[in-house]
Amino acid sequence: MDSVSTLLDSIDGVGRDARRGGYSRPVYSAAESELREWFTAEAGRRGLAVESDRNGILWAWWDVPGIGRRGSLVTGSHLDSVPGGGAFDGPLGVASALAAVDLLRGRGVQPNRSLAVAVFPEEEGSRFGVACLGSRLLTGTLDADRARSLTDADGTTFADASRAAGLDPAGLGRDDEALGNIGDFIELHVEQGRGLIDLDSAVAVGSFVLGHGRWRLSVRGQGNHAGTTLMADRADPMVAAAQIVLAVREAARRQDGARATVGRLTPVPGGTNVIASRVDLWLDVRHPDDAVTAALVETIHGKAQKAAAFEGCSVTLTEESFSGTVAFDPALQRGLANSLGGVPALPTGAGHDAAVLAGVVPSAMLYVRNPTGVSHSPEEYVEREDADAGAAALADVLEDLL
Amino acid sequence: MDSVSTLLDSIDGVGRDARRGGYSRPVYSAAESELREWFTAEAGRRGLAVESDRNGILWAWWDVPGIGRRGSLVTGSHLDSVPGGGAFDGPLGVASALAAVDLLRGRGVQPNRSLAVAVFPEEEGSRFGVACLGSRLLTGTLDADRARSLTDADGTTFADASRAAGLDPAGLGRDDEALGNIGDFIELHVEQGRGLIDLDSAVAVGSFVLGHGRWRLSVRGQGNHAGTTLMADRADPMVAAAQIVLAVREAARRQDGARATVGRLTPVPGGTNVIASRVDLWLDVRHPDDAVTAALVETIHGKAQKAAAFEGCSVTLTEESFSGTVAFDPALQRGLANSLGGVPALPTGAGHDAAVLAGVVPSAMLYVRNPTGVSHSPEEYVEREDADAGAAALADVLEDLL
Repeated sequence: MDSVSTLLDSIDGVGRDARRGGYSRPVYSAAESELREWFTAEAGRRGLAVESDRNGILWAWWDVPGIGRRGSLVTGSHLDSVPGGGAFDGPLGVASALAAVDLLRGRGVQPNRSLAVAVFPEEEGSRFGVACLGSRLLTGTLDADRARSLTDADGTTFADASRAAGLDPAGLGRDDEALGNIGDFIELHVEQGRGLIDLDSAVAVGSFVLGHGRWRLSVRGQGNHAGTTLMADRADPMVAAAQIVLAVREAARRQDGARATVGRLTPVPGGTNVIASRVDLWLDVRHPDDAVTAALVETIHGKAQKAAAFEGCSVTLTEESFSGTVAFDPALQRGLANSLGGVPALPTGAGHDAAVLAGVVPSAMLYVRNPTGVSHSPEEYVEREDADAGAAALADVLEDLL
Repeated sequence: MDSVSTLLDSIDGVGRDARRGGYSRPVYSAAESELREWFTAEAGRRGLAVESDRNGILWAWWDVPGIGRRGSLVTGSHLDSVPGGGAFDGPLGVASALAAVDLLRGRGVQPNRSLAVAVFPEEEGSRFGVACLGSRLLTGTLDADRARSLTDADGTTFADASRAAGLDPAGLGRDDEALGNIGDFIELHVEQGRGLIDLDSAVAVGSFVLGHGRWRLSVRGQGNHAGTTLMADRADPMVAAAQIVLAVREAARRQDGARATVGRLTPVPGGTNVIASRVDLWLDVRHPDDAVTAALVETIHGKAQKAAAFEGCSVTLTEESFSGTVAFDPALQRGLANSLGGVPALPTGAGHDAAVLAGVVPSAMLYVRNPTGVSHSPEEYVEREDADAGAAALADVLEDLL
């Protein structure tokens, strides 16, 4: 019987990023594959039968003989990370699920239905640009053809990466058999803001996930020599991109509850002594009201067009993904609150596989306190006691639902 | 006897960059190495003896028996490119030098001193960040220890890259024997702005090179989750970097004759759903008056510090290279003008190996018209007739100096 921290310690060295700090564990990379093998081994040690489905989702089954798998209770999370991410975003939920299985067995729980621990691929979207790719494929909320043609920074398609990971790309897409196995889905996750610090609680039940999306802005200008081109003769897309970054922040500031970010920006060709010919920047926008999110993106698009035109450049905006605001299943939320006795309910601005699944099956989330309030960064943290409290809460919830 | 265009056509396929367009031929890459082999073969076809010196500079010698090599006439340029650069920046000078040798022999010229065609490595500084690295090492204007420790984007040191290219890194540095061989140096280069379009001439003689330098600005903030971090809780270095990009443009606009550019910018970690923890941006500044360049960088540094502090970030500025304004040798300039009969004299904002050598040996430059006025871009261009005119002008100049 391992504690959550013991489990996480055993993958402490996998996928460290010396340049950025923290971890870089993109889906189907050597690091993420090593974590999938670790999960398979840990599940095997617990006598759980591990299978990969058509979409690369791992399922570790605690089968109840004679009952089958339809309508099972499922818990889990993901093992991939953002570039230079923390140790807890994803792995905490997977390790807590394994620890909860140990706790349930230690308590002598006899399940009335089967239980599975699931691991979803490409939750972060950090390699192929679409977050929650695995759960979107499973539920059919992402077109399989579009998924197959997604490319990473090296030009590798998701179809090829899936094939290299041992999957048949033709099998990607909505999987009614796998969906039918999920009676309820519970995801435990590290809290990613200051929510639980301010509430002074180790654990919370998720209430809703803010709608969020990603848009790519491509600003095109005139590439040229930085030394020979007079300032007056330039059409520099970097200058327009800088104005867009500021417009994004300003638009989000003026809208209560909105968050808008440019965290990725690539000048082409990207030489020090070269005026860029193109700058690509990616926009992340979130708000509880989907209509407000859409209006905010429209405002930013308009300001971007104005800034680009003023610089003699042009700009295009492409939606890469969008997920509307999702409230978790009310009955399940009440059940979790009852099991845990008065823990707070917390909304989140982070997307999760549980929010994607919530459109199809009853889903809920538990958050565990992050004392730094920082996530997607090496500074993300969970105290050992809080991790244990999270696993115990997950076990309590699962016990009442089994 | 090959025309310049025939020579350039024979390397048309080497180092093409499908993503950026144009060519990416960083020093000691497969592409640039192939160009060095091409040069060695072309020089060999002409009976020139090719040698690499301690700094990786290739020398193709037309020796005059009994005279030796001290005080020889040297012409040449470079074969490396910026990322996504044009076909002419560098290779035009090398191909024109080979074509000029053909022309001199066709004219039956009997040299009174030896002639060498030289190829300098890492003129662009696009791999190791310091422009004119080969000529700076040769002349001792760059410390050899500093050069050895320069790293490329993959973390490879210049020492290791040199070793991989067959050099002994311990031998890098000022080379008095090689310098003593240069009596005069003439570099032919594609014009990189609108200078010759406006002057309606195929060829010009270089007058001076604007002082120029590169500075790296590192803006540090608080990496965090793009969805869970409220706008008010952020210390986003991308927002500060955007303000710096605009301050750079504004400062250069207010200073007559100045050019300042941010063409390279890297957010760390660089994920779409991650507020960056750090943004590195590179500043290229040029002005005829070195004191003005220094003042301009100081102004930008001050504005950067203000912008960073306002965002709760910090910023450091590091000089990566600086070369003061260089006037070419007046006697040599007059000689070239006499040989060519009334061609215009033209200053340039682009750095060149000839400008580095000018600090040690009499040096001069010829520019060939670029009808697009665009350089460091696939749109850089030279008409065949203008390339032939350039090689003929170089042959005329060399003939009078031999």
